[in-house]
Amino acid sequence: MNLDFLSRVRMVMVNTSHPGNIGAAARVMKNMGLSQLYLVEPVIFPDGKATAMAAGADDILENAVQTETLEQALKGCQIVYATTARMRKLKHRVLLPDQAVTEAAQLQAKGDIAFVFGRERTGLTNHEISLCETLINIPTVADYSSLNVASAIQIIAYEIYRYHVQPDLPIVPSSDNLATHDELENFFQHLQDSMVTSGFLDVQKSPQIMPKLRHFFHRSQLQQSEVNILRGFLSAINKQ
Amino acid sequence: MNLDFLSRVRMVMVNTSHPGNIGAAARVMKNMGLSQLYLVEPVIFPDGKATAMAAGADDILENAVQTETLEQALKGCQIVYATTARMRKLKHRVLLPDQAVTEAAQLQAKGDIAFVFGRERTGLTNHEISLCETLINIPTVADYSSLNVASAIQIIAYEIYRYHVQPDLPIVPSSDNLATHDELENFFQHLQDSMVTSGFLDVQKSPQIMPKLRHFFHRSQLQQSEVNILRGFLSAINKQ
Repeated sequence: MNLDFLSRVRMVMVNTSHPGNIGAAARVMKNMGLSQLYLVEPVIFPDGKATAMAAGADDILENAVQTETLEQALKGCQIVYATTARMRKLKHRVLLPDQAVTEAAQLQAKGDIAFVFGRERTGLTNHEISLCETLINIPTVADYSSLNVASAIQIIAYEIYRYHVQPDLPIVPSSDNLATHDELENFFQHLQDSMVTSGFLDVQKSPQIMPKLRHFFHRSQLQQSEVNILRGFLSAINKQ
Repeated sequence: MNLDFLSRVRMVMVNTSHPGNIGAAARVMKNMGLSQLYLVEPVIFPDGKATAMAAGADDILENAVQTETLEQALKGCQIVYATTARMRKLKHRVLLPDQAVTEAAQLQAKGDIAFVFGRERTGLTNHEISLCETLINIPTVADYSSLNVASAIQIIAYEIYRYHVQPDLPIVPSSDNLATHDELENFFQHLQDSMVTSGFLDVQKSPQIMPKLRHFFHRSQLQQSEVNILRGFLSAINKQ
């Protein structure tokens, strides 16, 4: 594991309602050597309850980055994982927490690693999920699967630090040349533009096409060289 | 793992000050399929804050066993683990959470398995520690090692349930609608023709492009619906 892995981890909380959960998250992050907290549209922040629950991890709260959209919070990320307790009918890759952490830790460093956590009651929207390359399923019993958001952050932070103090043997093949999050987003934009220009895609009439393609390409773990080929083809089309 | 392992786990909270922590513990226990909560001299219990934080895990709270001493809470246990963030100069065995859970789960069932969690500020006394066979060290950074007690319970409960479900969540989606060999070959031909027509590909000059793309699409296990989208796009390009 690269020594700077801990410093490259972003914990991204989306539209959190209860400031106490933000504070609890800051505390467990500090316990586990993490420092980058991103808050997308927090409902109440800063707040005394967050500070109380942070129990000394005030620096994490003070340095938290607030953004208006998830897209902004993910800029500059190499890979993005979304946590979810509910398994949806999406075609995303799904990993267990330790599998995701092992994968992320073994990537050659090319940007930050984001873990995204949804709203207390309603989780992440399908659009937000579509911005993430991979889902993490935190296993729970089927009939009581709603994890507190700070608990979910606790589990991921624990797995990260657990790996840090005692790395496991590599279980995933080298992924050194995986396309970064930004490269994928640029590719998706290029693909969409080309589809619209060709007359194939009307985004209003067929809003499901791009999410389907995003799922497909996320699942396939595109390499940078493959993105380059596909974008070369798209550029050639545009000049036709 | 014996099927009844989850039902044999006792989570034992010693002299907990904040009822909210008891409620949060009940919630994560229920998430992870655990039911036996033991409370040794809780400072305030029952309490509305515990119920609020339990978020529906009221049954765990209602069935919680209250005792006056740790000895009473450990009666009938086969093995007892104490959690601690601070490493003491004791001659105990020390295991990581996953190591302890693996050990406990593989014991032949002869009684309950207890995991003991200390006070918010002062942890467990040396006497209480001496009642436990083994310590569990939840790894944290050295200079901020005080875990919230509900976070510690979260981590142990997670490791227990993680072990229970074992790995091997499907990483790829159901293969029911995978494109057939013939459909893939037709798609590859369509893709190659479009690339040549657009001027992007000269098969003689760049013989490596198509094999790379074939490799990519094979790896990604294309679904029939995805092939249809991609071929629809290629057809639109050809009419441009």
